[in-house]
Amino acid sequence: MIRVTVWYENMFHPQTQAAVKAMYPLGLPQTIAAFLERDPQVAVRVVTMDQPACGLPDEVLDETDVLLWWSHSGYDLVPDEVARKVADRVLKGMGFIPLHSAHYAKPLRLLLGTSCTLRWREADYERLWCVMPSHPIAAGLPVCIELPEEEMYGEFFDIPQPDELVFTGWFRGGELFRSGCCWYRGMGKVFYFQPGHETHAAYHNPYVQQILLNAVHWAAPTARREQLFFLHDDLGTDELARQGRPVPQY
Amino acid sequence: MIRVTVWYENMFHPQTQAAVKAMYPLGLPQTIAAFLERDPQVAVRVVTMDQPACGLPDEVLDETDVLLWWSHSGYDLVPDEVARKVADRVLKGMGFIPLHSAHYAKPLRLLLGTSCTLRWREADYERLWCVMPSHPIAAGLPVCIELPEEEMYGEFFDIPQPDELVFTGWFRGGELFRSGCCWYRGMGKVFYFQPGHETHAAYHNPYVQQILLNAVHWAAPTARREQLFFLHDDLGTDELARQGRPVPQY
Amino acid sequence: MIRVTVWYENMFHPQTQAAVKAMYPLGLPQTIAAFLERDPQVAVRVVTMDQPACGLPDEVLDETDVLLWWSHSGYDLVPDEVARKVADRVLKGMGFIPLHSAHYAKPLRLLLGTSCTLRWREADYERLWCVMPSHPIAAGLPVCIELPEEEMYGEFFDIPQPDELVFTGWFRGGELFRSGCCWYRGMGKVFYFQPGHETHAAYHNPYVQQILLNAVHWAAPTARREQLFFLHDDLGTDELARQGRPVPQY
Amino acid sequence: MIRVTVWYENMFHPQTQAAVKAMYPLGLPQTIAAFLERDPQVAVRVVTMDQPACGLPDEVLDETDVLLWWSHSGYDLVPDEVARKVADRVLKGMGFIPLHSAHYAKPLRLLLGTSCTLRWREADYERLWCVMPSHPIAAGLPVCIELPEEEMYGEFFDIPQPDELVFTGWFRGGELFRSGCCWYRGMGKVFYFQPGHETHAAYHNPYVQQILLNAVHWAAPTARREQLFFLHDDLGTDELARQGRPVPQY
Repeated sequence: MIRVTVWYENMFHPQTQAAVKAMYPLGLPQTIAAFLERDPQVAVRVVTMDQPACGLPDEVLDETDVLLWWSHSGYDLVPDEVARKVADRVLKGMGFIPLHSAHYAKPLRLLLGTSCTLRWREADYERLWCVMPSHPIAAGLPVCIELPEEEMYGEFFDIPQPDELVFTGWFRGGELFRSGCCWYRGMGKVFYFQPGHETHAAYHNPYVQQILLNAVHWAAPTARREQLFFLHDDLGTDELARQGRPVPQY
Repeated sequence: MIRVTVWYENMFHPQTQAAVKAMYPLGLPQTIAAFLERDPQVAVRVVTMDQPACGLPDEVLDETDVLLWWSHSGYDLVPDEVARKVADRVLKGMGFIPLHSAHYAKPLRLLLGTSCTLRWREADYERLWCVMPSHPIAAGLPVCIELPEEEMYGEFFDIPQPDELVFTGWFRGGELFRSGCCWYRGMGKVFYFQPGHETHAAYHNPYVQQILLNAVHWAAPTARREQLFFLHDDLGTDELARQGRPVPQY
Repeated sequence: MIRVTVWYENMFHPQTQAAVKAMYPLGLPQTIAAFLERDPQVAVRVVTMDQPACGLPDEVLDETDVLLWWSHSGYDLVPDEVARKVADRVLKGMGFIPLHSAHYAKPLRLLLGTSCTLRWREADYERLWCVMPSHPIAAGLPVCIELPEEEMYGEFFDIPQPDELVFTGWFRGGELFRSGCCWYRGMGKVFYFQPGHETHAAYHNPYVQQILLNAVHWAAPTARREQLFFLHDDLGTDELARQGRPVPQY
Repeated sequence: MIRVTVWYENMFHPQTQAAVKAMYPLGLPQTIAAFLERDPQVAVRVVTMDQPACGLPDEVLDETDVLLWWSHSGYDLVPDEVARKVADRVLKGMGFIPLHSAHYAKPLRLLLGTSCTLRWREADYERLWCVMPSHPIAAGLPVCIELPEEEMYGEFFDIPQPDELVFTGWFRGGELFRSGCCWYRGMGKVFYFQPGHETHAAYHNPYVQQILLNAVHWAAPTARREQLFFLHDDLGTDELARQGRPVPQY
């Protein structure tokens, strides 16, 4: 069972809230939870920024294998210590899937080390091309999918070169964007996915749903580490082994 | 002319100071400056942590193309705002070459996003293998070089996969280490190089000197950016071009 | 069910045959098959070079999801057309796991494009370090494992930079080697793993067995492609979509 | 001085020849030579497919630091042994810059190991975005440049993940393409650049000229290797060093 938490920045202006509700009557994060949970191997919990500890007390993170993070504008409302805690959890093994405007979420910026700035414009038609069909996150996908309306994010996108660039978005207005990017960080895996503006229909798109489900499986932890410490020993590893003493792990 | 600044953490215990002076009578950063300056294209300035603004006021950074950073233990003595300023300069184009224990320097951790923890032990014999001879930083180097005594740094080294892994170190005691690693971050280039303990002779080694000189040339800025801002426009790039209006740059 | 084929170059000198039988009484490829098949999701077939079509007629390849390839010296006995066929199958989605001396197997050289030459020496003690514990192939592994006796392969190893470098080997005699390397090629995935000399015990090592089982799962196809053709259309993708006509896939 | 050779497939149908001459009165490869030679550090020679040894006898390759390769349709007219020789030269250190339709040139396919197939269509408007402004090949370039008419090449482009993806092309018809890609292969460096159809004006574009000049500098050899051999020794490197005996190089 993969335990997924969907974190949602829910502090919009009332007018926006209404528009989101019109597009996602179930609620945006609840919509994501619903399609992920069609996979019996996945269990989803939704948390929101206005909850205690920003929705992410230790007991929630302790039970999270993969964290999806949807945010749009309240970046600075997330305390630094929450961001640091989330980033450290990723380094210790938790999967992390920042969605759409979460390209600028504090935990992602901590993990990538770049400014994560980009070019943007309001709604445009997007065509998402798969440039790495061998990747597990692209399983079952056609070579391109259409998103009739999506917020435009364009290059230059200030990110480290992705370890794996899976999708690139084409926008009718003339831009393109590295829209589906994988990075390995510490014991954890990170997948950023660009589509998903709150008033557009991306999360109703069955291909987008497939991508995010694939990503949850890809990002599920395969290793864990308890501490982010230095390891020191007076003896070399070879000598330790000769003496039958254990080699410090991670 | 490439303007290089060598930053040095000079706040050692007096006993260590004496040992460093015995190995590097000229001073450790001055030794680095001296061999770099044999290249007439390179001009070097040495700054130290105990100077105002941690040795890095804006007027120094404004005149720095490539920053070498040597530190060993006073990581936390560098104020967060200095570390942030250095990292931002890299994102805007400045080259950055953290040396030896600077694997844990604040600016590098900000740029890499991982814990940068590792395994370590006191002096051992190291053999440095070149695993990417096509790289400009390896120009003129043999396939391996010997460092009769060097502090042992071993895996697992918690770094993002290097964009280019140029050197890997073998230690007689049984360990290995990704010792020469390149990353691109924003407009800037980063090269981490492991040898260089303050009481060992690495910086007297002509091959190490060649590597660092090569690295300075590789990391010299080829692009600059003034601001780390988002770019927004109401019109698509294609429409802007049709109207003969400029496309916002970086 | 993942359908695995283990290909084996079985045309050794009788003296070597006897030494292999002493180490692997079941047979070397049969030993690999036996530990992989402990996973109920994996079905294994063994084929050998002396069989018709080099052991790889179409009907075998048609039923192969992941191909393990063990060879040591008879590289040139594999006809070019068999090597090409295997490489094309990988580009169409088949997983490929060349073992030990298969670093020089024709299909791998076709897929990597480099000379795949290296430095080598007879048996030495090897310590295999994990440099990417987040990788699925490293799941369940300690940070390093011991191989008391293994043929030494050392750098410079002329391969493209691995997409993911998972393991690096340390040899007591002074060398190191990129021993566990992943590449994506077309629709397929490739994992090269260095330990596995025919007269040494690597395939009896439970950690090596775990690595290869993990690799089979990682390399199992997630996408397939029937032809390696160019795609051409008179109309742009956007216009095709407007007309409701299908976009050519792969 | 960087010694550049521009290889040109000149066996077009007479009608095409006339169209090329109309666009490039000087000749297509001569046009490339002319703008490269404005750099006093660069000397250029033009060779063509109809010359003896396919234009590439050993004495030409011996004097070539960087080889640009322009071809469009006569892929199979290049003998396998010429393609092999060129690829081996790259592995030994020669820079290689395949242009436009040379994505399918035999030497490039040998070096990359994939099918290099793609999607294509006749002339469309292209906008070339820089996705890695820190790369030396992007020095002096704006974030995007316009190519009013260029043959459309689109994804999926079956190449290995580039070591560095510098440019991505946007086509008005709905496609995008990894248009400027770097790979390291052996001792050599490879840069593929997509624009450059024989009847379109790409090589008159000053930005394209800058890109190719930058690429020549980037691809110029920084290391050489004479042979693509295995290296063997009876003694470990550590023991060799103790005895003061040389370690075999490449």
